[in-house]
Amino acid sequence: MTEGTEPARAEQKGLSRRGLLGLLGAGAGGLVVGGIGGAVAGASVATAQAASDTGVVHPFFGAHQAGIATPVQDHLHFAAFDVAQDATREDLISLLKDWSYAAARMTQGLDVSATGAVGGAPDAPPDDTGEALGLPASALTITFGFGPELFEKDGVDRFGIAARRPESLQALPRFVGDALEPGSSGGELCIQACADDPQVAVHAIRNLSRIAFGRAQIRWSKLGFGRTSKTTSAQLTPRNLFGFKDGTANILAEDPTAMDEHVWTDGPAWLAGGSYLVVRNIRQKIEPWDRQQLSEQDRIIGRSKGEGAPLSGGSEFTEPDFAQTDETGKPAIDMHSHVRLAHPDFNHGIRLLRRGYNFVDGNDPLGSLNAGLFFLSYQRDPQRFVTIQRALRSDLLNEYIEHTGSAVFAIPPGARQGSYVGAGLFA
Amino acid sequence: MTEGTEPARAEQKGLSRRGLLGLLGAGAGGLVVGGIGGAVAGASVATAQAASDTGVVHPFFGAHQAGIATPVQDHLHFAAFDVAQDATREDLISLLKDWSYAAARMTQGLDVSATGAVGGAPDAPPDDTGEALGLPASALTITFGFGPELFEKDGVDRFGIAARRPESLQALPRFVGDALEPGSSGGELCIQACADDPQVAVHAIRNLSRIAFGRAQIRWSKLGFGRTSKTTSAQLTPRNLFGFKDGTANILAEDPTAMDEHVWTDGPAWLAGGSYLVVRNIRQKIEPWDRQQLSEQDRIIGRSKGEGAPLSGGSEFTEPDFAQTDETGKPAIDMHSHVRLAHPDFNHGIRLLRRGYNFVDGNDPLGSLNAGLFFLSYQRDPQRFVTIQRALRSDLLNEYIEHTGSAVFAIPPGARQGSYVGAGLFA
Repeated sequence: MTEGTEPARAEQKGLSRRGLLGLLGAGAGGLVVGGIGGAVAGASVATAQAASDTGVVHPFFGAHQAGIATPVQDHLHFAAFDVAQDATREDLISLLKDWSYAAARMTQGLDVSATGAVGGAPDAPPDDTGEALGLPASALTITFGFGPELFEKDGVDRFGIAARRPESLQALPRFVGDALEPGSSGGELCIQACADDPQVAVHAIRNLSRIAFGRAQIRWSKLGFGRTSKTTSAQLTPRNLFGFKDGTANILAEDPTAMDEHVWTDGPAWLAGGSYLVVRNIRQKIEPWDRQQLSEQDRIIGRSKGEGAPLSGGSEFTEPDFAQTDETGKPAIDMHSHVRLAHPDFNHGIRLLRRGYNFVDGNDPLGSLNAGLFFLSYQRDPQRFVTIQRALRSDLLNEYIEHTGSAVFAIPPGARQGSYVGAGLFA
Repeated sequence: MTEGTEPARAEQKGLSRRGLLGLLGAGAGGLVVGGIGGAVAGASVATAQAASDTGVVHPFFGAHQAGIATPVQDHLHFAAFDVAQDATREDLISLLKDWSYAAARMTQGLDVSATGAVGGAPDAPPDDTGEALGLPASALTITFGFGPELFEKDGVDRFGIAARRPESLQALPRFVGDALEPGSSGGELCIQACADDPQVAVHAIRNLSRIAFGRAQIRWSKLGFGRTSKTTSAQLTPRNLFGFKDGTANILAEDPTAMDEHVWTDGPAWLAGGSYLVVRNIRQKIEPWDRQQLSEQDRIIGRSKGEGAPLSGGSEFTEPDFAQTDETGKPAIDMHSHVRLAHPDFNHGIRLLRRGYNFVDGNDPLGSLNAGLFFLSYQRDPQRFVTIQRALRSDLLNEYIEHTGSAVFAIPPGARQGSYVGAGLFA
């Protein structure tokens, strides 16, 4: 990232006064002397002159937010925020404007503001924290979402938007086997930062959190590596920490019909072209899994570990044949295998666009790795996730996993250049 | 990684019976029917037929262990182990043999054994956990070390090696400002897995931990991203989470004189050609740092944030001139700046080979990121680290950091092909 030449079109003027104060933080000794007059980077790669030759650059502005249909990047930093107790509607709007301004710059490979990490006054704290200086955009996408409690919390309509809450946006019901921890659940706002370089994703969340100072703060956050899905057929199917290919049947961005049918939502009006994000923190009990015999692992998933082919035969992309039986007359694909229970054929045709990541967070006192899958799925209605998750009630896999975190967010459509993410909600 | 064609030379036969039992684990239902007759992958790339075309492959066997002078990879998974209470000398030796066998294979891009993830009997647990199937070697290095308590613990010489403990190998003294947590300190054995793909590094630690079942278990472990040093001049100098270039003056592997003078140790005999590893988990208080003015950040480090040039002038690789004064007559580089206090000129010429990584482990209840530097340094004597760390007692940086973990390990020389890491200690 660099200080960045000014893009030709300057439709937003920079961070709000509140955003500038956020950068100073509580108890700061300095003062911002040089104003932050930087412009929003343009929507197209061409206008982002400073973006590296080597880094893929995704546009920030557009009909949909980036980070949903975008080819899944290698790394994730996800953060759920709560808005400050005393924040007003105007604070929330200014935060979303500042976030959009900063995200538009960072996704183009630029510093968070025009003065950036080292272009400001010596006696002021730098606008940008600097750890991504010199790094390319690295395919960074920044995706914002609104949790149910943003609209109404404890019966209070803090921001005058309670009436605009979509009926579908409510905390997920409790599922069988849930072992949810408050420390990785919920959130009034969320930011999903995906990039091919983890330092770039971390830089984005850190700087957006810094800008939010006094207006919102992180409730919980998570790093993920090793994507467990793909959104283009050109991407190889990755493997999860159970060693199985994951995402073979994912919705592909190159299939606009499927995207329209399953992912993009069409109402209410302020959310049209957006989606809903479901987040589940899934602990995988890898040691018991690793002690299970190969044939049993295959049976539980319903596919072969090596090739990823359905147990009814064929190769990875062969459609499973659930009617097929083995020589003893039993179904070739177990009735309670993961692939069968989650399949659209048994779930009213529902498909979710998954974007999960593997994680390892140290180990427990017995030396077992705290490992798992950080599950992210986009769908046109969260009820679709509920339907699938309920179908998985008798999943053979449940013996080896535990859901420890859960959250749901409405994902507004993309911002128009010169506007900000979520503008429609406040129009 | 793949099941792997057998390399031509088979100097070791495979995992020990104890290692096989480890793969089964406690309470396993299956039996290993197919024997694990796989061979150790050869030392050179040429013999590792299965290694991907795209992945850099480092030899496992050699005079020195890989992962020290090797160009620093992008990702780290580090684990400290304790040997099981009832383990014997023979158990320890067999563990080191199994680890060497498995590490030699995995670093060549092969599965952990010849039968691997999917080549075994269907009614046995797979030898390999499978999440790296299809991934290239990704420059993986696996480096083993021995902590002080391996030699003697509570006055007991469990493995008959107490007399062979080098005098230099003892727990580090307490330093001013230490806030050490037992959960990230110490360890009788350690494994440093570095790779350009985090999934490959995680796969290595996980499978080595699995092989150790019943003989040793993980005490603590850590993932790192974003290397903060470099070991060849061809690598760009990376940045730490304070936004500064880190590793500008690191020892380079292409400078064998410096490596011999500062890194490789020459005695005792079993350790000659090895080194000592010091590990420090350093929490960085990034929010207070981010509120500090740019000139003050520069003064604390002693270099400029953007270029990384010493404040006495020049560019990144200009030698600092500590005698230079500014217009007010004060030293241009503060007497208590980090760069001055750590400089060889004031520390008997001592230089450490650093191999640190950035980390972010979620956030605290106030929304601050749990972020920091996982510091790894290799030196011919751990006392050299002690000298530098004591010199940093008055470091201006100390206000913004906290050492929360600490460990020290003797790093044996590389294994000869057909032998195992640490063989000299038991000869």
